[in-house]
Parts: sequence; structure tokens; C-alpha cells
Amino acid sequence: MNKSEKPLVGIIMGSDSDLLVMSEAAKFLEEMEISYEMTVISAHRTPERMMKYGTTARARGLKVIISGAGLAAHLPGVAAAYTTLPIIGVPLKSSTSVEWDSILSILQMPSGVPVATVALNAAKNAGILAAQIIGAFDSGVAGKLAKFKEELKVKVQAVAEKLEKEGWKKYLGK
Amino acid sequence: MNKSEKPLVGIIMGSDSDLLVMSEAAKFLEEMEISYEMTVISAHRTPERMMKYGTTARARGLKVIISGAGLAAHLPGVAAAYTTLPIIGVPLKSSTSVEWDSILSILQMPSGVPVATVALNAAKNAGILAAQIIGAFDSGVAGKLAKFKEELKVKVQAVAEKLEKEGWKKYLGK
Amino acid sequence: MNKSEKPLVGIIMGSDSDLLVMSEAAKFLEEMEISYEMTVISAHRTPERMMKYGTTARARGLKVIISGAGLAAHLPGVAAAYTTLPIIGVPLKSSTSVEWDSILSILQMPSGVPVATVALNAAKNAGILAAQIIGAFDSGVAGKLAKFKEELKVKVQAVAEKLEKEGWKKYLGK
Amino acid sequence: MNKSEKPLVGIIMGSDSDLLVMSEAAKFLEEMEISYEMTVISAHRTPERMMKYGTTARARGLKVIISGAGLAAHLPGVAAAYTTLPIIGVPLKSSTSVEWDSILSILQMPSGVPVATVALNAAKNAGILAAQIIGAFDSGVAGKLAKFKEELKVKVQAVAEKLEKEGWKKYLGK
Amino acid sequence: MNKSEKPLVGIIMGSDSDLLVMSEAAKFLEEMEISYEMTVISAHRTPERMMKYGTTARARGLKVIISGAGLAAHLPGVAAAYTTLPIIGVPLKSSTSVEWDSILSILQMPSGVPVATVALNAAKNAGILAAQIIGAFDSGVAGKLAKFKEELKVKVQAVAEKLEKEGWKKYLGK
Amino acid sequence: MNKSEKPLVGIIMGSDSDLLVMSEAAKFLEEMEISYEMTVISAHRTPERMMKYGTTARARGLKVIISGAGLAAHLPGVAAAYTTLPIIGVPLKSSTSVEWDSILSILQMPSGVPVATVALNAAKNAGILAAQIIGAFDSGVAGKLAKFKEELKVKVQAVAEKLEKEGWKKYLGK
Amino acid sequence: MNKSEKPLVGIIMGSDSDLLVMSEAAKFLEEMEISYEMTVISAHRTPERMMKYGTTARARGLKVIISGAGLAAHLPGVAAAYTTLPIIGVPLKSSTSVEWDSILSILQMPSGVPVATVALNAAKNAGILAAQIIGAFDSGVAGKLAKFKEELKVKVQAVAEKLEKEGWKKYLGK
Amino acid sequence: MNKSEKPLVGIIMGSDSDLLVMSEAAKFLEEMEISYEMTVISAHRTPERMMKYGTTARARGLKVIISGAGLAAHLPGVAAAYTTLPIIGVPLKSSTSVEWDSILSILQMPSGVPVATVALNAAKNAGILAAQIIGAFDSGVAGKLAKFKEELKVKVQAVAEKLEKEGWKKYLGK
Repeated sequence: MNKSEKPLVGIIMGSDSDLLVMSEAAKFLEEMEISYEMTVISAHRTPERMMKYGTTARARGLKVIISGAGLAAHLPGVAAAYTTLPIIGVPLKSSTSVEWDSILSILQMPSGVPVATVALNAAKNAGILAAQIIGAFDSGVAGKLAKFKEELKVKVQAVAEKLEKEGWKKYLGK
Repeated sequence: MNKSEKPLVGIIMGSDSDLLVMSEAAKFLEEMEISYEMTVISAHRTPERMMKYGTTARARGLKVIISGAGLAAHLPGVAAAYTTLPIIGVPLKSSTSVEWDSILSILQMPSGVPVATVALNAAKNAGILAAQIIGAFDSGVAGKLAKFKEELKVKVQAVAEKLEKEGWKKYLGK
Repeated sequence: MNKSEKPLVGIIMGSDSDLLVMSEAAKFLEEMEISYEMTVISAHRTPERMMKYGTTARARGLKVIISGAGLAAHLPGVAAAYTTLPIIGVPLKSSTSVEWDSILSILQMPSGVPVATVALNAAKNAGILAAQIIGAFDSGVAGKLAKFKEELKVKVQAVAEKLEKEGWKKYLGK
Repeated sequence: MNKSEKPLVGIIMGSDSDLLVMSEAAKFLEEMEISYEMTVISAHRTPERMMKYGTTARARGLKVIISGAGLAAHLPGVAAAYTTLPIIGVPLKSSTSVEWDSILSILQMPSGVPVATVALNAAKNAGILAAQIIGAFDSGVAGKLAKFKEELKVKVQAVAEKLEKEGWKKYLGK
Repeated sequence: MNKSEKPLVGIIMGSDSDLLVMSEAAKFLEEMEISYEMTVISAHRTPERMMKYGTTARARGLKVIISGAGLAAHLPGVAAAYTTLPIIGVPLKSSTSVEWDSILSILQMPSGVPVATVALNAAKNAGILAAQIIGAFDSGVAGKLAKFKEELKVKVQAVAEKLEKEGWKKYLGK
Repeated sequence: MNKSEKPLVGIIMGSDSDLLVMSEAAKFLEEMEISYEMTVISAHRTPERMMKYGTTARARGLKVIISGAGLAAHLPGVAAAYTTLPIIGVPLKSSTSVEWDSILSILQMPSGVPVATVALNAAKNAGILAAQIIGAFDSGVAGKLAKFKEELKVKVQAVAEKLEKEGWKKYLGK
Repeated sequence: MNKSEKPLVGIIMGSDSDLLVMSEAAKFLEEMEISYEMTVISAHRTPERMMKYGTTARARGLKVIISGAGLAAHLPGVAAAYTTLPIIGVPLKSSTSVEWDSILSILQMPSGVPVATVALNAAKNAGILAAQIIGAFDSGVAGKLAKFKEELKVKVQAVAEKLEKEGWKKYLGK
Repeated sequence: MNKSEKPLVGIIMGSDSDLLVMSEAAKFLEEMEISYEMTVISAHRTPERMMKYGTTARARGLKVIISGAGLAAHLPGVAAAYTTLPIIGVPLKSSTSVEWDSILSILQMPSGVPVATVALNAAKNAGILAAQIIGAFDSGVAGKLAKFKEELKVKVQAVAEKLEKEGWKKYLGK
């Protein structure tokens, strides 16, 4: 695992080809100063490893698991089979994706075994959602999230003011 | 609000026509002995009420908000605009639904404002997910979830044994 | 706001990344000599600003609001929640769009709160529709629209004549 | 035409099998005391009639045309070809519909010829949108729309109060 | 029109941006020595021209009309409104297409007014289909079609022999 | 074959469960007094019969083949493999259909082998299209088609007059 | 397991609500006199049981596993993770299915771990495919399959003869 | 055919433009030391050749046929019409594909004539599936498949260890 501190969030993905997208979740957790671990586990190629990861997750101190997967994306759902921790699923797009394959494979989980699904490739939003879950019980994290939310607002307002002042032609450099 | 105890989960929906489906979330929370409140708020018909609900949610002690909505389903996303609590979105199907309308309106939230989306009409799974979020920090709830998960397993095994013993013809009453 | 004259049309969008597409609406309104204002408002990042914009729109003299948005595109619908002015929604395509996400999030509004939806990325058509709404009550604008429609026809006829005269091989430079 | 007063809104549809749905638009206009006319015109079976209807609409005093159509739904777009009045398109569902056929046939109009599309079968919303267009220029109608909007809010609040007071079990009669 | 001989097939499209694709139909008709005419007509920008073209088509000697169109593709259906000649529709893909928009707008014509739809962008197949219609009544054309069909077969067989002899590695130049 | 006169149109389908829908094509051809034959051929269960039917069709005097098929609907395309006659494909809906399966299996034929596809379950339109193909070369049929087209128009006009005179409330019996 | 003879085919499904559809596979195997076993295993509720079933399947003498599953249908893919036997996946439709959810969850398996997918609810075809796999190596089964195929052909021909002789009106009882 | 040894697997495709993708199946069979043949056959351009190939396949010693096809992909289904050997279908994507066209044309085969469908462009998985079918009856192949499966696992574990040791920033070279 890649953090010395005891991790609160586990980030898993089926292949290192998912890493670039999934690192957005890690980046956000670092901004929020939430400890995490990150690794590669395949539901289909290393099923025993998946079972071990899931069944020990709570005891190791994890609070949330973020799982990215593409195509017939089973990793988040299989993770949910082994633990009662909340699982956040990130449907990923790949070169041979068919429209909605990873979304439906993650979202449409049967009764009893939910996965908290976010938008296609939305690993950053998965990180935010993990922070919100922790922040519901940790006022320090809640404060950082409130600041992050405020910054989002301020950025939009700055853009709005600039556009209103300059007009769209100058803004677009026309 | 319909519970005397201070609620941990808020369940909101856009119309009382969503109540029958959404009550599955409440039912599960009762099984887990998690206090909740439930009301009707419309993102489009009562936007000020939505704002007030969202901005006061954390201070009132809520840990999670479950929001069901159909068609161009904005309620979960608009709730997410007003709070940093985790929002669980339940896409609902109605008689004039177009395939995927509520799913995509809830799932595809822009960067910065995630909604934890569950399957179509999966209000029970939303209740389970809310319990899992609380259970990540509350060992009593975690224990109840583990028991629930065990019961799911036992039920499947009982069905399997009966089917293997009887054969499918007898099982189906043929 | 970016026009000295009192604006009749408000053009809003969730992010300046939508500006290049949305400026097509502004360009058409300028051709029709219809005053407009243009700004950035996010339904999810600046909800209070959205409320203020919507609730004051009519009093400020606006007749129509054009709103572009992508992904789970809530801006047009949320604008419609705050005003009884007609709202024109422009579904936008982005790099992480899923087929139909912005279209269904704008089009499938529930009963009572319509949004006049145009084609994907069709900001120019949104500008034309706004002009048609104003032109229904303003004969000057109606005259300009009739001229615009006539020019469309003349252009097609010129192309047709050229193709018929030259043949497709010469026309295509083959 | 079916109203003695000079109509402001024209409601057209391709067949009387669309009438039950489309009458919702008429009903709303009556509530708003907006005069309208309603007839059947087929883009494919009575194209000359369509041309005559479209080219004379403005001179006859119409401000908006509402057009419902199903399947390969050309009526709204063809109406838009003949007039610069705003056209509101209502995609209809029929027994042999393919998912999205009428929506895409109405929504995806080419540049220069917009149709203001509303949700599937949403004839009432088409009526509301027509009223909003007229109400942008007629303070009497604007006042009625504000009252209608207020009533929507009040109804939601009454439902919310009842649910909060009774709880969902009593509310659902369980 | 771009052929001195009296044309049997009319090829129409909504814009010269469709010409490159649609010229494949013309090319095939030339191979079959079937006379044709080709022009640009817009159902929405030049509706009167469309009416004139359609109502005179049979009298001018046309046997089939091939019509290409994109987006909310009304041209083939509107052509079918004005004539009882068979209309072949070619759904086209453009940069702002939504999946299936032109296909459904052409294919799903209501009862009484069919359009013979071919695959997306399949202008060559439209040319072949027009030739097959003529060839059903003209043995000279039928003979040319039989020869074309035989050549297709011979080409596949030559490829098959080469692949079987060389193996896929040499065939792919590996 | 079920007609004594030498048939001009062949109507084939994969199963007698398609017969009720497909008989609409036959009914229209009878109205037009066009001789036809109708039988059941399965591309997958009786492929040799399909080959024989296709390779002898032209010599037996057929001018057009109408083929209905559901699911992975190969019959129209396989028919097209064996003859250069025009093939009209009718995609059918069945109880285990997936949206668009029969449409895409018929419409998206590869280059060289077109199928003239009509709307889902639109067997009557297939009959009309067959008549239009014959009517392009047979003035008697052309005259009957013109009369049919005129009757469609008259029916719409009668409905329109009744609706305009009665108003929608009386028309709907309200 | 429900057969005394050593089973060659394992039929598994996630719930007994899938049994009625899945029994079609069993029925066909009985017709072919191929021994099978049938049980309920849930990828999400009994993952350890799934692991045990998969890892012992080959040693127990199974040649093929047929797995039915609905929604986010992971069972076939998870079975494929534990064995190198061929897995046949049957996507099932349920009351809360979203179009294509089970199909894409089964079909779009990542490289290295294929599932042989059949049509929606096509459990009989799964049984036939299993018999074909066994029949490729067992001439007795191959003979029975040839006979089954011949019977399919004979049935179609009988229907064809009846229809050709009676005509469609009598055939349909009209 | 391109192998001296008597082939066990036949790989067929409709065009040499499919060869690059389909060669992945051949490559895997070579790794497994399974003899195969590969050729081009078109269901629509060389139907007689298809019939001959299919009807002689079993007698020539084939155990499985892998068939790739795009668009309205009939080749796998037509192959299944002529033999009782298991057919593996590989839906292919081409430049004029419509979403799901080849998938649905292959997957949704009618009752009685299954095709074992794999993911879009997943020719390697088709090769693996063919090997699994043979490996169910050939312990040598089964052993090679077990080794292949083990290697997949080892590769994932190596990647996981590297990522856990290095952290994602170093892994991504940031």
C-alpha cells in the first residue's frame, strides 16, 4: 500500500491502464488530507486477491472503497459482495467500450448489494464523495469540503465577472 | 418530520407519487434502527424550500440524504449543490419516462458535485448504502449490516438446497 | 452584464468552456439587433446566484432566457424553477458525455415546468428561437427574421443551380 | 377553427389519435384564458394544407404554434419551414414507436429552423410554454402564470406537511 | 439537372455538405448506365421547391428518388408526401448528430407514406437499390446487376484464395 | 403459393407467428390488385429453401420481395444475397426483442447488398412501397396509388373539419 | 445436485426467480440425454460458494457451465474467473431492468476471460449451445442435434405448405 | 486453408478488412498449439461458398467455428444455419457502424440456432473460448489454458506490487 499513515480510503482498479484516470481520486484525497491506499486488483484475473482485500478491508480501518472498472465492469460489485463498507464505483471508458457498458454493469446492482455509482470517468467526483462520507463524521474534513465548495463558487463568480465586463468577443480572443 | 428521534438520514422526493417506491429506503433504515426523516421537496416547484433543506441539513444532524426523482431528475443534484453531505440519488421510472432519463440526469453530475447513484427504482439499495455509510463509523450499525448480509447468504443457500434436492420440476410445481 | 441597452434576452451557461458554442446564440441576436446579456451561472456551484438571476429576470426586462448546459444538465430546468419567462435549453456535448445525457436532462422536465429544448450544441438555433419569440410581438424583428429565412432559401437555390450546372464531379473538384 | 375569439395559439397534430394527449395543451390555455384554435394537419398526407396553414399563420394573428407528432415526427419541423413564428414540438409515443423516434425527429432540427421541443407526450408543458411566451409580453397572462406557479408550490407544501405529520405508513394507507 | 438524357433517378440532398457521400449513388448509376439528375433541395429552407420537385417528378419521367439527409432528416419523408414514386432514404451522419437521429427520422414513417431506408451513409447501396428497382423491369439493367453481383463474389473469392495461400501473417505484411 | 395469377410480389417471413402483422402487406396488395405469393421461409432453419427461393425469384416473374423478420433478423439480407430483385425488409418486434435488434439487423446491410427497410412492424408500408415500385412502371397501379393517396388526404381533411366544428371536448365525448 | 448421473453441464442462476426461464436449458439437455446439475449461486450474496463451485467444476467432470443473470449480471463473468471451462451466459430481463443492462454486463467481458453470450432470456439456446459443444466431441450427441435441426426444418416446411395451400386468411381464421 | 495439420478451429470473416482484428484469435490458438484454418467468406456475396463451408465443416474435422462480422452481421448466424458445431461470433466495429448493430445482429439469434457471442472486436476472447471448448475434452489444452490463466494473475500481481511500492505519481512518471 502506498501511504505510511493508516488509510481510510482504498482505491482499486482492474488494470494499470486505468491509473491515469483513477489518480484524480487520489489527488483530491491528498488535497483533503485524507489517507488512502491504491492498488490493482482484477475481479476476473485475481479473484482470490479480491476476496482477501474485501473481507479484510474493514478490519484494516478502511471507511470507503473506490473502485474503477471498464467494459463489463464487475470489480465494484464484487468488492461489495465481500464487505459492508460503502463502495463507490467509477465506470471507465475504453477503446472497445460499447455505450453504457461499464455504467450499467456498475449501476444496476441487484437488491441487497448497492454500489454508489458516479459519472463516466468521474474519478475526482469519487474522491469528493469519499471525502463527503468521511466528512459526515469528521468535522475537520467537513471544514475542508466547505472551503472547497466555496472555492468552486468563487471561481465561477470570477469567470462570470470577467465575461460580463469584457464581453464574449474579447473573452474568446476574437 | 416524521420521527421523534434526531434523524441521521433525510429521505426526500419530488412528489408523493414517488412515495411507494421510496418507502423501501425507510423500511430498511427502520430494520437497521437508524433514525430518519422523510418529506416531499420539489427542485422545480419549491426551490426555496430545497435551498433551506440543503443548507440546514448538516446542522440539523443529518449524515446522509437520499433523494428519489424521475424524468429530468434534478432533485439529487440540486440537493448536492447546497450541502457537502453525501447525497444518494435514486432514479425513478414513470409512465412517461424515456429510457435512461432519470439515470443520466442523476449520474452524470459535473466535476465537484457528485451524487451517489443507485439502480433504477432501487430505493432499498439506497437505504442499504446509507446504512453502510453510517456503519463505516458506527459499529452497532456495522454489526446489523453484517447480520443482514449473512441472512442474504443463508436465504440463497436454502433456496439452492431445496432446488438441488427437489429438482426444478417439483420446485416449479410442474 | 455585457450590453449597455436594456437586454431582452439572457444567455447563461454553467462554465466558460461552454462559451465558444454558446456565443453562436449571441452572434445571431446581434444580427437581429436584439439586445442581450450573457453570463456564467452554475446551478450546482452558485445556486444562490441562480436563484437571484431567475427571480429578478422578468423585472429586469428580460423576455427569454437561453441556457446551455452539458452532462446532467440542470441549469435550464433550475432557471425554469425561478421564473415564468420562457427558458430555451441548449444541450451541450463534452468530452465525458454519455449519449443523450444533456438532452434528456433538459428535455424531460416534469409537468408544470417546461424547457424549450433545441438540438445538441444548437446555440444558433436557440438564438433564432429567442428572436422568433420576440418577433411574434415585434414586427421589426419579424421583418428581420423573414429576411433571414429568405436568405437561407436563396443560398440553397444558388448551391442547387451551381450543382445542376456543373455536375457533381466538377463541383467536388474531381 | 374551434374558438370564436381570434386565436393566439394554433394547436395542430397529425391524426385524431393524438387528440387525447394534445387536448392537455388546450385545457391549460383555457385556464390561462388564452384563445387558441386546434386542428388536424398531416405533413405527409396533407402537405399543401400544411403549407397554407404555415404561411398564413402570422397574418391570422397566431403568436405560437404547438405541434404534436409521433414516429418520424415531421409536422413540427415542416411547420417551422413555413413561418417565423415559434413552433413548440410535442413528441408523442405510439404503439409502434421505437425509443426516441419522435424526440429525435423533432429535436434535432438543422441550423436555421429550430423547434422548441418539450418532453415525450408533454402536451400540458407545451401549453404552459406557449403561455409563457405570450406572458413575456402580456402582463395579464404573466400574472396568471405566477399564480399557477404559486399553486404548484402550495400543493407540494401541503403534501409535504401531510407526509411529515402522518408518516409514510399512514400516508400510504398501510 | 446534370445529365442530357432524360433522367430515371433523381438524387436530392439538403445541403452541398452531403454531396461527397451522396455522389456514391451517382457513381454507381453511371456504372449501370442509368440516367440520373442530382440537385440540392431543403425540406425546411426551400419547402415550395420541394413541393414542385415532388409533384412533377413522375411526369418528368423519374422512376425513383434517392434522398440523403442528416439530423432530424425530413427530406425523404417530405418527398414521399408529394409523389407515389418510391423514395429511397439515406440517413447521413454529421458532426452534431445524435446516435440514430437521421435513421429514426427517415425509417419510422407513419402508415401510408413509406420511405425505403438504407444504412447510415450508405449512398452506394441507395444507388444499387435504385438500379434493382429499375432492373426489375429492364432486362438490360438486370444483366448489369447480375454482372456486378458476380464481380463482388469473384473479389471475395480472390481474397479468400490469397489469404488461404499466404496465411494471415504474410497477408498483413507481418 | 396462394394465388393462381402469376405473382409479382413475394411475401416471406421466418415463422407463422409473424403472419398477422405481415398479412397487412398482402391486404394492401389486394387493394391495389397486385398479384402476390406468401410463404414461410427461415434463413436459419431452412437455408437451402431460402437459396432456392431467392435464385429462382426473378425467373418466376417476381418484381419485389417483401421479407419480415424479428430479433437478429437475417431473412431480408439473406434474400438479398441470392437475387438482384429489390428486397423490402420489415423489422418485427417480438416478446424477447431488444430495442433496435431487428431494425439494425436489416438496415445496416454492407455495401453491395442493400435492403429497403421500413419502420418497425410496418408491413402495410412495405406493401405500399412494393406497389410504388411496380407503379413506377405500370400506370394502372400508379393510378390506384394516386387514388389511395388522395383518400388519405380526404380522410385527414374530414377529421380536421369535424374537430374544428365540434371542438375537442365534444370530439372526445367529454 | 439434481441428477444421479455424473453431470456434464452445470446450470447456475442468481435467484430462484430466474428458474422458470432457465429451466428451458435443462429441458433441452434432457431431450438430448445430456446429464446436468442445476443450482442457485449468487455472485454477490454467496461469493465463497461461487468460488468453490468454479474451482471444482472441472474436477467434478463438468464440461460447460450455463449461467443466467439479470441487471448488473456478474455471475457468468465471475464463474469465468474461477475456471477455464467454457461459460455460457444468459442475460435475463427483470421488472426493473434497464435496456441492455444484463446483456452488456455479460457480453463485454475484458480480454482473457470470455463468456459465450446468447440472446436475452434465451435459456433454450444456451442449452443447445452446450449440447453443440459436447456434440463436437461426442457423435451420439451430434446425431441427436442433427435430428433436432432436421425437425426444425420439417416444422417450418409444414407451416409453409399449410400457408401456401390455405392462404393467409384461412390460416389466420379470418 | 493455411495450416498443414488438420484444423480443429475454422476462423472466417466477411472481408479482409476484418483480418487485422480477427488475427488475434489465430495468434492465441497458435499459443495454445491448436490447429486452425482461416479464410474469407461473405454471407451476402458468396452465399453458396458459405453453405458448402458450413455443411462440410464437421466432416472435415472442425470442432468450433469463429466468425467475425460487422454492421448487419449475418455471417455467424448463417454459419449456424448449416452446421451443429458451436459457432463463436465476434461483432466488429467499422467506420459506418451504428452503436450495437453487429452485436445485436449476432447476439439476438432466434430459438434453435444459437451463436456464442463475445464482446465487440474481442477476437482474442473468441480464440480463448474456442480453446476452452476444446480444452473441456483435451487435457493438454486444458493445461495450457490453466497456465495462461495463471500468467494473467501473475501479471496483475506484479503491476499491483509495483504500484503499491512506487505510488501512483512515480508509476505515472509524474
